[in-house]
Amino acid sequence: MTSIQTNITTGNTPPIRLIIHGGAGTISRSRLTPEHEQAYRQVLEQSLVAGHTVLKAGGSSVDAVIAAIVVMEDSPLFNAGKGAVFSHEGRNELDASIMEGATRMAGAVAAVTTIRNPILAAHAVMTKSSHVMLIGQGAETFATEQGLEIVDPSYFHTEFRWNQLQKAIAKNRVLLDHDSNSDTQLPSIDEKRGTVGAVALDRYGNLAAGTSTGGLTNKRYGRVGDSPIIGAGTYADNRSVAVSATGTGEMFIRAAAAFNTAAQVRLLHTPIAEAADNTLAEIAAIGGDGGLIVLDAKGNYTMRFNTEGMYRGMIGSDGIAQVSIFREVETPGSDPSAAMP
Amino acid sequence: MTSIQTNITTGNTPPIRLIIHGGAGTISRSRLTPEHEQAYRQVLEQSLVAGHTVLKAGGSSVDAVIAAIVVMEDSPLFNAGKGAVFSHEGRNELDASIMEGATRMAGAVAAVTTIRNPILAAHAVMTKSSHVMLIGQGAETFATEQGLEIVDPSYFHTEFRWNQLQKAIAKNRVLLDHDSNSDTQLPSIDEKRGTVGAVALDRYGNLAAGTSTGGLTNKRYGRVGDSPIIGAGTYADNRSVAVSATGTGEMFIRAAAAFNTAAQVRLLHTPIAEAADNTLAEIAAIGGDGGLIVLDAKGNYTMRFNTEGMYRGMIGSDGIAQVSIFREVETPGSDPSAAMP
Repeated sequence: MTSIQTNITTGNTPPIRLIIHGGAGTISRSRLTPEHEQAYRQVLEQSLVAGHTVLKAGGSSVDAVIAAIVVMEDSPLFNAGKGAVFSHEGRNELDASIMEGATRMAGAVAAVTTIRNPILAAHAVMTKSSHVMLIGQGAETFATEQGLEIVDPSYFHTEFRWNQLQKAIAKNRVLLDHDSNSDTQLPSIDEKRGTVGAVALDRYGNLAAGTSTGGLTNKRYGRVGDSPIIGAGTYADNRSVAVSATGTGEMFIRAAAAFNTAAQVRLLHTPIAEAADNTLAEIAAIGGDGGLIVLDAKGNYTMRFNTEGMYRGMIGSDGIAQVSIFREVETPGSDPSAAMP
Repeated sequence: MTSIQTNITTGNTPPIRLIIHGGAGTISRSRLTPEHEQAYRQVLEQSLVAGHTVLKAGGSSVDAVIAAIVVMEDSPLFNAGKGAVFSHEGRNELDASIMEGATRMAGAVAAVTTIRNPILAAHAVMTKSSHVMLIGQGAETFATEQGLEIVDPSYFHTEFRWNQLQKAIAKNRVLLDHDSNSDTQLPSIDEKRGTVGAVALDRYGNLAAGTSTGGLTNKRYGRVGDSPIIGAGTYADNRSVAVSATGTGEMFIRAAAAFNTAAQVRLLHTPIAEAADNTLAEIAAIGGDGGLIVLDAKGNYTMRFNTEGMYRGMIGSDGIAQVSIFREVETPGSDPSAAMP
């Protein structure tokens, strides 16, 4: 049985569900100490509980996505918000986006450096402006005017990310934060964190999706990846699915990863796991890898990745948080990339 | 007979074709003087000839798209390059993107202020970097390093665009450059220009698409529209179509307009005009309007818009440039939004 047929609530209570990811990459037991694994599991669980609390109380899927992502942005463990990687110039340049499945309203920010929680800024763009995407200082001015918490850029300074940058500069390489195969000298704790994202279904049957990231270590030239691009890193449409992506951003943009997945479901009624796999196969064909979390308006969900592992979790109507990191343990069945039953 | 069945070359010579647009909006004969109309027609024709010269000589569709767009960027008539509108702060912030259908490689720049031809910068990102999207000063640094022509921001200063900004500021409005219905006091010449774009098919059967814009008059906060977003303003895939979009950028992003159109063709084999209309209907349903140019790898093409008019043109293997602006004259048949036979 694949993940997509499980946990559908029947009866009087409409299903609520939240799926999250914290990045996909070369994540294996041999590279992660038990202490680090426990730390990740704890934050993922906190994120799930935060989002579930919103849904359980009758909150919207958008608010649940925000609640879940804020927890991961505020943790130094993930490459988003507090734990963001450094650009070549030693800055933390953050990107985020959010989309609402009922209205297909969307908001995004890119290359912001002083907004504590970029997902809140993306939400403000969606709800308080007539625009979808604001970037750089303009986005920061807007966030300030909207009363969002502005921090000194030093807030985003973490020692291990800084060291990660120095090593990347020394090797003249741009690193995907969870890419460690290519550089085994980097301490494992540094390389196994990624973009964060969430998709949620509220009791009103509305979907939402959101994604937040610090991008690539040692990135230059104002590089923007897929996370703030509606259609690439994030998409939500009640008529099909909500999707959040993580991986090699350039290939996810070129494949319009999130919309691509939604389009297959909407136009061909492709099962969601198959749609996600098709998208990941297209991305693999152009040299990329990563993962997708997908949720439909009935509560069917899937978490697919073509990397070693993906930080991820699911919580449904029963309120029991399920967290996974590696591939091998959670997939005893016939479907190795179906992350969780 | 609709546009999509016409002009397919049969025989030994593979078809070559180039379609361009210069923006869609409230463009009617009553608002455009004969002199202005003639000026627009002349630049559109020059653009078509420039691209056709490339294709005829055996050049690539990417190079044809660039040649066609550079002509429109260098003209003060269109809201791209030289003729870009002003942001609220009195800057010209330019966006562009390009994509190649054979490899699905892509490049984009956003919020650049000193690059004479943003489409060339987008191309440099595609071919000379490992990234897809570079923004702001970082993108300008990259373009400088790549030897592209850098100009003083005053190069983009045109008197009528400046006046347009002053009027928009006085009215505290953000104007889509070709939106005139909402403010009839603006001089008509100012309001009827838009984003430019091109799609091309070369003799090797490869598609390409590109789009370039100055965005919205009086835009603030680093607003970015659909033009530099791969999947929204631009998409190209030899397996389906090349698409360039123009219109209310926010809704085009939310509908993933370009990829949406390509996905219908690829997944459902929807006829290209119908696919474009479906996309425009989705955009209309969320409050947007504009146009799409679409070309497939056999040379079938369509130019659709749900506005009064769209600056547009087509040139095929015969080298005869066909230019249109309004809706009524060029559509005597049963299909009012099919722009050209």
